[in-house]
Amino acid sequence: MSPLRGNALIGQSGGPTAVINQSLVGLVEECLAHDAIENVYGALNGIQGVLDERLVNLGLEEPRVLQRVAETPCAALGSVRRKPTLEDCELMLQVMKAHNVRYFFYIGGNDSAETANLLNQAAVASDYDLRLFHVPKTIDNDLRETDHCPGYGSAAKFVAQAVAGDDEDNRSLPGVKVDVIMGRNAGWLTAATALARGAPGEGPHLIYVPEVNFEWEAFLGDVSDALEQHGRCVVAASEGIHNAAGELIAQSVEKDEFGNAQLSGSGTLGDILSQRVKAAFGKDLRVRADTFGYLQRSFFGCVSEQDATEARAVGQFAVRAAVSGERPHGSAIIERCDEDGQYRPGYACVDLDKVARHTKDLPGEFLDGTHDVSEAFLDYVRPLVGPLPVAGRLACYPVPRSQ
Amino acid sequence: MSPLRGNALIGQSGGPTAVINQSLVGLVEECLAHDAIENVYGALNGIQGVLDERLVNLGLEEPRVLQRVAETPCAALGSVRRKPTLEDCELMLQVMKAHNVRYFFYIGGNDSAETANLLNQAAVASDYDLRLFHVPKTIDNDLRETDHCPGYGSAAKFVAQAVAGDDEDNRSLPGVKVDVIMGRNAGWLTAATALARGAPGEGPHLIYVPEVNFEWEAFLGDVSDALEQHGRCVVAASEGIHNAAGELIAQSVEKDEFGNAQLSGSGTLGDILSQRVKAAFGKDLRVRADTFGYLQRSFFGCVSEQDATEARAVGQFAVRAAVSGERPHGSAIIERCDEDGQYRPGYACVDLDKVARHTKDLPGEFLDGTHDVSEAFLDYVRPLVGPLPVAGRLACYPVPRSQ
Repeated sequence: MSPLRGNALIGQSGGPTAVINQSLVGLVEECLAHDAIENVYGALNGIQGVLDERLVNLGLEEPRVLQRVAETPCAALGSVRRKPTLEDCELMLQVMKAHNVRYFFYIGGNDSAETANLLNQAAVASDYDLRLFHVPKTIDNDLRETDHCPGYGSAAKFVAQAVAGDDEDNRSLPGVKVDVIMGRNAGWLTAATALARGAPGEGPHLIYVPEVNFEWEAFLGDVSDALEQHGRCVVAASEGIHNAAGELIAQSVEKDEFGNAQLSGSGTLGDILSQRVKAAFGKDLRVRADTFGYLQRSFFGCVSEQDATEARAVGQFAVRAAVSGERPHGSAIIERCDEDGQYRPGYACVDLDKVARHTKDLPGEFLDGTHDVSEAFLDYVRPLVGPLPVAGRLACYPVPRSQ
Repeated sequence: MSPLRGNALIGQSGGPTAVINQSLVGLVEECLAHDAIENVYGALNGIQGVLDERLVNLGLEEPRVLQRVAETPCAALGSVRRKPTLEDCELMLQVMKAHNVRYFFYIGGNDSAETANLLNQAAVASDYDLRLFHVPKTIDNDLRETDHCPGYGSAAKFVAQAVAGDDEDNRSLPGVKVDVIMGRNAGWLTAATALARGAPGEGPHLIYVPEVNFEWEAFLGDVSDALEQHGRCVVAASEGIHNAAGELIAQSVEKDEFGNAQLSGSGTLGDILSQRVKAAFGKDLRVRADTFGYLQRSFFGCVSEQDATEARAVGQFAVRAAVSGERPHGSAIIERCDEDGQYRPGYACVDLDKVARHTKDLPGEFLDGTHDVSEAFLDYVRPLVGPLPVAGRLACYPVPRSQ
């Protein structure tokens, strides 16, 4: 079969990550390496840029610029949160036909996979030969099929280093500290704060994820136990924790076009948890809360090397899969190939509708009781994050008391 | 004059920094190098550990442990926020006499300098020969006499990298983003976010510090101007901004023993500012807020090398000053010695009461209008922070429109 010839178009969508530009540059590099692809275009602000016909020629960018862009967090092409209507899909197809776009790559989460899915249906209906591939990214790590998502390893590294430092802070000035981590539906990122523990007694002492129903009585009991055992308590809680009735502990006011509640950027959950702790344990207990917010996905200078490498590679793989013609559309995924106990990533493709819309929770074997993660989870997440700083600890040889 | 012989005692106090343990280790190393100092003790949790006689023998710690402790953020000896009473000072002197402590080094901010000052007055009154030195630390950079404070450079680096990433995030998904930075009385740390700007148009676009009275009308006008010019707006605001009447924009509920309001760890100011922006510009504008909280002072893995070097050196200097006997007490400071335009730090001592209690605002020449910093400030702060990551930016060669 002779390869489909034409131009490629790339877009970025959804919340940024530290390595989403690695995928962008991986896509550009690999597109430039294939004769079937004549020009490599980028759409500014995802499908919005397709709709508005704001396209740029990425093939003209200098390689050293591309390398620096790859190392810059967030979406270099600009991002968007927009779910296309049927009319949007028709209009986008018109633009693509006008520019002879035969390869479309959309970097994003499950909403972006759904966008790709809808666009693919429109292309099939209008009998337009279009190779359409979703390239995964999300700090939430909640996409199905893939072992993990590009972007997660770096965000996990950030929250691990943040909680490791915060645990030192809490050790310096003891009390209860609540850290609220991103994660509406799944606790993957919050779970990764467990990597902050370098030695017994180090926090986070309690980890709460949306996969476990949150109960106030149990929570206050857990805090009490930690205070008794360690004289202090560092709590990591997902923004999306909820009670058994499914009601969020933090009530939200704003929803995006996909119906996702906007939970970050407000201290609500941290304030609610810390006020309850204060009420339960009295004013003498020092209680503080922080909401990590957008720093988790955008901080400039905290990247997992493994994550960066894989984000680049998965973009390159998507192009090879598209050009090969094995399938007209799909979602690129990362597989875990540890035959000898040594972590090694592999790349593959699955159907778009296996990834679109759905999310993936932390499986039961990655949880340990109601407020911790298991060793199996730590084995899963360690290679994705890579080396972390290790705290030095004084031996503290006591000076005999004077009397 | 023969040197005063006896033991040394070191304590850490106040909010932690990324390099306060560098000063601790600098003190220990230098104490071990002087014959006049027989043992080097540490007090756990600052003066609380002196009062409780919880002392450790730092001279027995292994050098490789000390080196790793130096590279660990926050107070390895534990910290405290406690203002000593006269009775406390008497009791502490008894403990010091019992352990033949002749050198006391207290690492902390202006409250800690005041503690040292009070303890010194008690020592003088009881005719006990005690060399008492304050070693500066604070992320707020608001101590008098010193050119800058150890701890500031690293916190400034963190907020610069955080805002640099957040500006990329805002560029990806445009709107208004408010970042609330630590700083009750002085805007030094918030001002340092200006380092995030690598090129024209990059944020933060607006910087608000407590040194300038905050006015709602002017603020909303500034945001409007930024939106018009850049299509987006990143705001950096000190937690302590207030109106002309001195009333905090964020009202606080909790005060510590020194009467300082507890402003961090709550999304209050960010929520107030972003709600006003939403009210003024309508629901279609994407508005978000983050409060950086304790990550600014404790994040594990974002240190200014210059800051780390100086924090170590100022501890070493304090010991040499104390042993020299030139003065019985004082506060170690850092001087700026740029004779040839090349930044170089020097070390000196000043009287404790010149540093105790007071704070130092951003001087007028470091401000530019009501919502920005000057080039003079950037020249001041750059060498303290060191190299920062630089964003790669696509040239974005436009693809001609199809019609």
